[in-house]
Formats: sequence, C-alpha cells, structure tokens
Amino acid sequence: MKNSDLQARFNAIRSNKIFELFVVSIIIFSALVIGAKTYNLPPYLQSTINVLDVGITLFFLIEIFVRFFGEENKKNFFKSGWNLFDTLIVIISLIPVSDTEMALVGRLIRIFRVLRMISIIPELRLLLNSLLKALPQLGYVMLLMFIIFYIYAAVGSTFFLNINPELWGNISISMLTLFRVMTFEDWTDVMYETMAVYPLSWAYYLSFIFFTTFAFLNMIIGIVVNVLEEERQKERREEEALENAGQPTLEDIQQELVEIKQLLKKQSGQ
Amino acid sequence: MKNSDLQARFNAIRSNKIFELFVVSIIIFSALVIGAKTYNLPPYLQSTINVLDVGITLFFLIEIFVRFFGEENKKNFFKSGWNLFDTLIVIISLIPVSDTEMALVGRLIRIFRVLRMISIIPELRLLLNSLLKALPQLGYVMLLMFIIFYIYAAVGSTFFLNINPELWGNISISMLTLFRVMTFEDWTDVMYETMAVYPLSWAYYLSFIFFTTFAFLNMIIGIVVNVLEEERQKERREEEALENAGQPTLEDIQQELVEIKQLLKKQSGQ
Amino acid sequence: MKNSDLQARFNAIRSNKIFELFVVSIIIFSALVIGAKTYNLPPYLQSTINVLDVGITLFFLIEIFVRFFGEENKKNFFKSGWNLFDTLIVIISLIPVSDTEMALVGRLIRIFRVLRMISIIPELRLLLNSLLKALPQLGYVMLLMFIIFYIYAAVGSTFFLNINPELWGNISISMLTLFRVMTFEDWTDVMYETMAVYPLSWAYYLSFIFFTTFAFLNMIIGIVVNVLEEERQKERREEEALENAGQPTLEDIQQELVEIKQLLKKQSGQ
Amino acid sequence: MKNSDLQARFNAIRSNKIFELFVVSIIIFSALVIGAKTYNLPPYLQSTINVLDVGITLFFLIEIFVRFFGEENKKNFFKSGWNLFDTLIVIISLIPVSDTEMALVGRLIRIFRVLRMISIIPELRLLLNSLLKALPQLGYVMLLMFIIFYIYAAVGSTFFLNINPELWGNISISMLTLFRVMTFEDWTDVMYETMAVYPLSWAYYLSFIFFTTFAFLNMIIGIVVNVLEEERQKERREEEALENAGQPTLEDIQQELVEIKQLLKKQSGQ
Repeated sequence: MKNSDLQARFNAIRSNKIFELFVVSIIIFSALVIGAKTYNLPPYLQSTINVLDVGITLFFLIEIFVRFFGEENKKNFFKSGWNLFDTLIVIISLIPVSDTEMALVGRLIRIFRVLRMISIIPELRLLLNSLLKALPQLGYVMLLMFIIFYIYAAVGSTFFLNINPELWGNISISMLTLFRVMTFEDWTDVMYETMAVYPLSWAYYLSFIFFTTFAFLNMIIGIVVNVLEEERQKERREEEALENAGQPTLEDIQQELVEIKQLLKKQSGQ
Repeated sequence: MKNSDLQARFNAIRSNKIFELFVVSIIIFSALVIGAKTYNLPPYLQSTINVLDVGITLFFLIEIFVRFFGEENKKNFFKSGWNLFDTLIVIISLIPVSDTEMALVGRLIRIFRVLRMISIIPELRLLLNSLLKALPQLGYVMLLMFIIFYIYAAVGSTFFLNINPELWGNISISMLTLFRVMTFEDWTDVMYETMAVYPLSWAYYLSFIFFTTFAFLNMIIGIVVNVLEEERQKERREEEALENAGQPTLEDIQQELVEIKQLLKKQSGQ
Repeated sequence: MKNSDLQARFNAIRSNKIFELFVVSIIIFSALVIGAKTYNLPPYLQSTINVLDVGITLFFLIEIFVRFFGEENKKNFFKSGWNLFDTLIVIISLIPVSDTEMALVGRLIRIFRVLRMISIIPELRLLLNSLLKALPQLGYVMLLMFIIFYIYAAVGSTFFLNINPELWGNISISMLTLFRVMTFEDWTDVMYETMAVYPLSWAYYLSFIFFTTFAFLNMIIGIVVNVLEEERQKERREEEALENAGQPTLEDIQQELVEIKQLLKKQSGQ
Repeated sequence: MKNSDLQARFNAIRSNKIFELFVVSIIIFSALVIGAKTYNLPPYLQSTINVLDVGITLFFLIEIFVRFFGEENKKNFFKSGWNLFDTLIVIISLIPVSDTEMALVGRLIRIFRVLRMISIIPELRLLLNSLLKALPQLGYVMLLMFIIFYIYAAVGSTFFLNINPELWGNISISMLTLFRVMTFEDWTDVMYETMAVYPLSWAYYLSFIFFTTFAFLNMIIGIVVNVLEEERQKERREEEALENAGQPTLEDIQQELVEIKQLLKKQSGQ
C-alpha cells in the first residue's frame, strides 16, 4: 500500500508545472556551466564550477528517480526513447573520470546533457520527431545523390590523382572535395588547378554542380509536396467531420426527392 | 473652444496629402544629407550641411508637435509604438553634442531618422508588422537551431581549442565560427586545419552543415505553410461571406424539401 | 491601290514561318559572329567577319523595313516597345564608327542585337513580360531592403571608415561592401578586420545578415503567394465558366423548389 | 518447344526477388571495388581486385543474357533505353584494355557500371524519369539564362580583355567567369580588379547577379507551379471518379425536380 502511495506522490511531483520549470532551468544552468568552462577562469571559480557540476549530476539523478518511480508501470518507462536517452546520459556522467584522456570524454557527455532540453520541452520533441519522419521519405533522393557523388568521386580520383593528391587522393577524399564544390567554397581554385592539365575539365565541375543542384531542388520540392499533401488531407478530414456533424449531403437531398416523388405517385394513383 | 479649434486645424494639416508628401521628401532629404556626410567634403559644404541638419531637426520637431496637437485624445498618441519611436528619435537628436566621443552617437541618432520612412509610409509599416508577426511562430525552430549551435560550439571549443584559439577560443567565438561554417564562408580552411590533428573531424562539420541546413529548410517550409494556411482561411471567410450574402446552402434546400413533404402528407390525409 | 498591294505582300512575308525561322537563324549567326570576334583570329578571318557584319546589319535593316511596311496602320508599329527597340538597335548599328574610342561602343551595340532573340521568339517575350510584371509587386520589399542597406552603410562608414577606407570609404562603397557581405563572399575577412577594433561589431554583421535574409525570404514568399493567387483565380474563372455553361447552381434549385411549393399550395387551396 | 521453355525459365529467374537482390548486391560490390582501386593497395590485393573485376564483368554478361532470353519478344528488349544502356556498358567493359592510355578509359567504363543501380532499382528509375520530364518545361527559362550569359560574356570580354585575359580572354572563358560570379565564388576579387580600371563596373556585376538570381527564382517557381498543377489535376480526377461512382450531382437533382413538377402539373390538370 505504502509503495503505490509513494508512486502517486512521485507522479504528482513530475506532473507539477513548477517542478518541470525547475528542471528546465537546471538544464539551462548546466548548459551555462558547460559554456563557462570553455573560458579561461581563475582557479577559485573553476573549483566552484566543479562543485556545481556534481550538484547538477546529483539533481539529474534524483529527477530520473522521481520520474521512474512516478511511473505506474515500470516497463513503460523504458519504452520511451527519450527516457532511455536521459537515463543513459545521467548514468554515464556518474562514472568518475580523472585522467586527462577520459576527462575529454567526460566533458563530451556533460555537453550532451543540453540535449535533455529537447527531451523535456514537448514542442521541441514534436519538431524533432517531424524532422525525423520527413527523413526516410527523402531516402531515394539521397541515394541518387550519393550515387552521383560516388561516380564523380571515382572519375575525379582516376583523372586528377596526380594533379593534387590532397584533394583527389582516394575516393573518400574526392567525395569531401566534391561536397566542397557543391557548397561553392573556393570551387574555382579546385577547377583552375585541373583545367591546367585537362582544359575541358570545367565540364566535369559544371555538370556536377548542375546535377546536385537539380537533385537538391527536387528534394526541397519533395518536402513541399509532402507538406501540402498533409495539409490537404487535414482539410479533407475537416470537411468529412463537418458532413458527419449533421450537414446534409447531395445524397441526402436526392433521397428526400425520391420520397416526395413516391408520395406524389401514390396521390396520382388515388 | 479655441483649443479644440486649433486641434481640428492641426488634424487637418497632418491628414493633408501634400503635408505627408512634404514630410516624406524631408526624410529622404535628411537621408541624403546623412549619406553626403560620409564623403570628404570641402569646409563650406560641411557647414552648409550642418545648417541643413539643424533645419531638418527643427522641422521634425514641428511635425511631431503638429501630429501631437492634432490628436483628439492625447493619450492615444503614445499608444502607437511608431509615434513613440518618432518622438524619441527627434528628442534625442535635440541634445547638443560637441565633443568627439558623443558626436559619433549624435550621428548614429541622425542615421536612425531614416527609419522614420517606415513609420510614415503605411505599406512599409504593414510589411514590417507582418515580418515581426511571423517571427514568434518560428520561435521553436530557432531554439532548436540555437541548441544545435550551442552543443557543436561546446564540442568544438573542447577539442579544437589548442588547434586555433582564434576560432575555437571559447564557446561564443566557436558559435561565431560555426555561423561562418553555416554560410559556407571558407569553411574548408577551418576544416582542413582541424583534420590535420583529428582526421575524422570532417564528420563534425558535415553533420553540423546537414543539421543546420535541415533546420533552415524546416523554417522556410514553416513560413510557407503559415502563408498557405492564411490564404486558405481568407478563402474560407470569403466563401462564408458569400453564403451569408443570401446564397442558399444545402441545409436551406433540405429545409424546403421537408416543408414540401409535409404539404404533400397533409394533402394525402385530406 | 498599288501601295496597299505592297503592304499586303509585306505582311504575308513577315507572317511567313520560313521567313521567321530565317530571321532567328540570322540572329543566332550574328551572335556567333560576336562571339568569334572575342577570339584572336588571323587577319583574313577578321576581314571576313567584318564583311559578314555589314551583311547582317543590311539584312536587319531590310527586315525592319518589311515589318514596317507590312503594318497596315503605321502608327501601331511604334506602339510596340519591341518594335521600337529593334528599330533603335538597327539604326544605331548603321552609324559608321572608325576611331578606337567609338569602336567599343559600336561593338556594344552589335552585342545587344542578341537581345532581338527575345523580341522575335514569342515564348521568351512572354517570359520577360511576366518577369517585369512581377517586379513592381515586390517594390515595397525592395524599398525596405534599400532602407536596411542605407542605414547599415551609414553606420558602417561612420564607425569603420578609419579601419579600411577601401571598404567603408563612403556610403556607396559601404553599400557595395554590404552587398558582398549579403552574398557571404569573404564576409568574415571584413568582420575580423573591424572586430580587431570594435570587438562587438559581429553583432552589426549578424543582424545585417539576419535582416536581409529575412527580407529576401519574404520576397520569395511574396512571389510564390502571387503565383498561387493567380492559379486560384484561374481555377475560379474555370468554375464560373462551367456554371455559366448551363450547370445548375444551388440558387437554381432553390428557385425550382419555390415553384413546386406554390403549385402544391394552389392544389391544396382547390 | 524447348526454346520457349527456356525463355519461361529465364523470365522466372529475372522476375525472382532473390535474383534481383543478388544483382543489386553485386552492383554495390562492384562499386566498392571501384572505390578500393583509388586507394594505394599492396600488390596481392590489387591482383585479387583484378580477378574480382573479371568475375563481375562475367556476372553482368550472364545477367544481361538471362534478361535478354527471358524476354518473350526480343525486339521489346532493346526498346527500353535502360536495357540498351546496360548492354552497352557490359559489352564495352568486355573489350580488353592493356596499354596505359586505354586503361583510363577502361576504368571509366567500369565506373559507369555504378549507374546500373539506377537501371535496376525502379524507384530511382522513376525519380530520374521525373527529373528528365521536368527539364524541357524549363527550356525557355534556360534559353533566356543562356542569352543573359552570352550578352554579359560578350560585353565582359570586350571591355575587360586587357585587364585579365585569364578571366576574360574570350567569350567562353568569360562565360565560365560569369558562372563563377553567379555562384558568388570570390566574385568581389573579379570585380575589384575591373573596378580599378572602370570604376563603374560594379553595375555590370550587380545587374548580372540580379538578372540571374531573378531568372533562377523564376525557374524554381516554374517547377513548383508545375508540381502544384499536377497535384491539382490528380485531385480533380479523384473528384470526378467519386462523381462517376454514383454520387449525385446538382444536375441529377435538377432533373428530379423537373420530373416532380411535371407530376404536379399533371395532377393539377386532372
């Protein structure tokens, strides 16, 4: 009996608006601490920050406990990816790291605590979910883009290897170079270098830019069409809801007319 | 009686089309004076410009007075943000600035007088309002983008600090560097520098570019969807207006049919 | 009688498909000649090209004559902007230019003959017209953008003049520099230079980029909304055309019902 | 009889899902082999790769045979562009190339085998087809853009030839330089160079950027409008399908009313 009592109390705490706001402000504070660490600070401030860091870690630990014990069915807690992510981040940041090599990893983990902002604020969670949902629909455009990159990189590293191995050394370096060309970042330097040996190599770059721009445009239009399609479906559902809410349809009216005609015919037959 | 007489006369002046045009042309003229000051001018022209400047300030003062006294209810005058802005700009530019330090601030204030163009021309005021209205709707996407920037900047200043402190010195400098990477401005120089130490750091840059591009696309699509939604609502309101303007609906027709049926039934019952 | 006979014949010529194709091919040929002139050619080819040039000029003169005399009402000929443009280009290229200074202008005129491609091909003419039609609708966004540029340029040339007069010398140079910043072309070089003196000047650049990007986005959305509005109006006109083509409206049906009710009431009254 | 038996068996093989997956995995493997070749490999690995290469070529040959003999009507096989493409790629890669000059061409052919990915995966084939279908609709915008480029390049190589022959040497080099300006790649370097001689040449670059940006925007809007038009037509077809599926139209209802009126009139006449 006492156990379920505790669970109810924990549940009350985690649903509390003030508790939620408090957690968000602690996350923001932890983000500020992470930012402050990147500055050159006097020793006394650095030790203060280290103490604060331990405090934040403990607070997050307590918060996860509250949320875990507040859950009626313990299994459901780990069904949510965000809960798993929160727990993992907190547990890993508990591991004491002292030697310099691991200290870097420890700092990295603390940085990812900022991501808890997304797991706490529902609107951000929604936004990220909709971003992730849009991703697979673009899968084939991305595959096509990858094929374009791969072929151009293979051609590039075949012909331009001896011109500049730093840019065209092997197929992965070439793909990085081509990504650079796609962002228009000093792409003419790359081009002029190869045009000195192969004067027609401008066709290689221009066709590449053309293809990737075109595929990119297609991706954007794909997203826009998806969005419009969703809007249209929403609209259609609204219209259907209106119809089901008692608004007469043309079919209802035809039904009425048929009844009237039968009434009239009966009268005529009298 | 005399007071309200004056007010009516002032109101007539400020609503006058010619007066409005005159104010706009004075604002344009003041903008030209500001522009002229940035050129190296002979002394006699500079003193002419200083005289003109005093004249413009006085004219703006008079104009504000006219508009203030033309207002029936004096309280309403300061309820408009644009009126407040105009008054502030005019009052501050009245403060005499002579020493070199303050002269710069004085020039700055005079520059902001060009913004009065927006407060005078209704179409520009409308445009700016619609821009500002669109801003909060994008709030969460911007927060998400800020989180992405913050995390990448924290990671960047942790790992790349010793490679180039000018680019990765602390979290704010790192965020500026990342903004540069987002605009594709010499981003490969930044990348090649860190790839010399961490060969896999290209993944850091590419994932950052991917995330920000994706979030940016989402922002644009968000705006487009908003605009479409507004269009659709306008259309719906027009349709409803048509309906209310006496156009029969399916419901009206059903009503008629019900009445006819009752008439027929009564006849049959006769 | 003979005059109107000639006019009819000329009109027949200029409406002839083969004549039109021939004119287009001469324009393309004249474009190729212009292109060829930019190469280093042996003397005998250059004199050939000069002869060809005279030939092209004569052909264009004859073509204009044919089109002018083919026009029934001579006044209508000059009402079309394209006809005026064609005539002007041809007449100016008739003026003999020999000395080197004017030779450059002569070449320039010959280059603009390529624009005749647009005046001849109706699809291109349509495209350009629709581009020009979209321009004024964007007028206020462009005015807003110009105001943003002007204010930032005035601020820039006030504060940064002594840092780099080549970039911030006066208000027009500053506006060019800001346009460069807007295209993200080496904008960080400009920024780092001023940040050495005013460490907070990054806010100047970032806010400028933010405002212009936002205004630019608004411009694009403005165009898209315009296009959608036109589409919608076309659709509405189609629907109305359908209605006028005998399709019954809800109003017609209500009218019918009213008549039926009156018939029934008369019967009841019998 | 035996021949058609074989054909049916081959047809069964090529329609087999496992066979298809196997072909895709061999294509991916051949792409990896192509990528591996761009790395510096120890000799024993290189000979292994050469053997694998022969194996892949043979497999592709067999696969083409299976697909050819699986076709009922042999003529239909070559009616598909993709089949032709596949056959060509396989046949050319059969030609033995040993001397260094041709080896490069041989490698090139092997690279294009990656394109078979598109010919095998139906979704990619569809995507590419829709890309190609969108191309001709943009034809006139592209022609307009080419005319803009040609005129500006002619003007550029006329005026700027002596300033920098590497950028403005002849009309084709000038067009490449202008493409660079359009991508904003170090365009100010190009501009500042010519502004030293012609101080007003900024107008040349700014107007060019303005025109191309505008034409590019138009192209994008053209694509979006096309896509929307298609969506709308799809919607309209759906609505018509609904109507044909027995849903009454306003015309049907009017018809009913006319019949009712006639019935009533007959009754009155009784």
